[in-house]
Amino acid sequence: MNSPEIQRMIQLLSRLPGLGPRSGRRVALHLLKKRDALLKPLIEALQTADQNITTCQHCFNLDTSNPCHLCKDVKRDNHSLCIVADVADLWAIERSQIFKGTYHVLGGLLSALDNIGPQQLTIQPLLRRLETENIEEIILALNATVDGQTTVHYLANQLQAYPLKLSSLAQGVPMGGELDYLDDGTLLAAFSERKKL
Amino acid sequence: MNSPEIQRMIQLLSRLPGLGPRSGRRVALHLLKKRDALLKPLIEALQTADQNITTCQHCFNLDTSNPCHLCKDVKRDNHSLCIVADVADLWAIERSQIFKGTYHVLGGLLSALDNIGPQQLTIQPLLRRLETENIEEIILALNATVDGQTTVHYLANQLQAYPLKLSSLAQGVPMGGELDYLDDGTLLAAFSERKKL
Repeated sequence: MNSPEIQRMIQLLSRLPGLGPRSGRRVALHLLKKRDALLKPLIEALQTADQNITTCQHCFNLDTSNPCHLCKDVKRDNHSLCIVADVADLWAIERSQIFKGTYHVLGGLLSALDNIGPQQLTIQPLLRRLETENIEEIILALNATVDGQTTVHYLANQLQAYPLKLSSLAQGVPMGGELDYLDDGTLLAAFSERKKL
Repeated sequence: MNSPEIQRMIQLLSRLPGLGPRSGRRVALHLLKKRDALLKPLIEALQTADQNITTCQHCFNLDTSNPCHLCKDVKRDNHSLCIVADVADLWAIERSQIFKGTYHVLGGLLSALDNIGPQQLTIQPLLRRLETENIEEIILALNATVDGQTTVHYLANQLQAYPLKLSSLAQGVPMGGELDYLDDGTLLAAFSERKKL
């Protein structure tokens, strides 16, 4: 019904995470109505990103340089390493400004269901980093999901041969969390890890 | 924190309707991970759309040709005209395959709040079409909102000088609608327009 050019645009936009056919159509129309304010700048930004963004071969972050700006930054503490599953997690921790060390992005989590084993993750490069760098502490900042915790256990096993401080993120009631709305798992963790006042 | 190229991409994606900073970041990462499967085809589709899609100067639909394929289609009934606010509404009616006439896209609805008067809509071109074309019936397919109904009344007034059948969409209980969940306005319309069995 629509011209194939519009159909193709809608079809690709619908495949973006969080969008579907309906929101894809909405986004397509919005872009076609705002050519100069949005469509053209977006095309340019996507092209620039496609041409310039690369994966850091040291920590597997996404950046315009390889090694990335975090790996190159001499002000960051390279004795402390934070292991994350995904670049999105790295971004989240960077936004919180809580961590001043370096990162290692696994590229996913171990998952029997999705057929993701240690070979699919950047665990070999991680072990090589441990051989060559002077890393004293590792923080496993992985999701509190089944896959996340499986990966924590697997890595804890792999890393116990190395003389380093190993920790994973605390679990419990999130900030602003109402007990009434929490799941049993979170309540259980919050009780068993209760803090002495 | 991120490279300016990634920031710019996220910033523009966040301005798409239905997306915000969080989903913008998610979409950006997804695109950067699926370069060949999604990012490059999307850039190409957006460029093609930007270069080829234009506004039909007859009915104000968006298409690659001007006049658009609907206006050019000799199999469509050009005695019957459906007036819609937006191209999205035209697409919705075309998807339903309920209407075989031609369209006129107003480009919005009258809105005192948003400062949209008759001059901002394609009402002058519509009146010119009525002078030159042999239109016998007009269907006002506008939203059942305050702005939509204001526009229906305004157009009904403007069009009463012309000898044509004028109608607007029926209001009532939507297909699958449960009375318990309907607003008072819909119930009121459904009662006052009740059908004899």
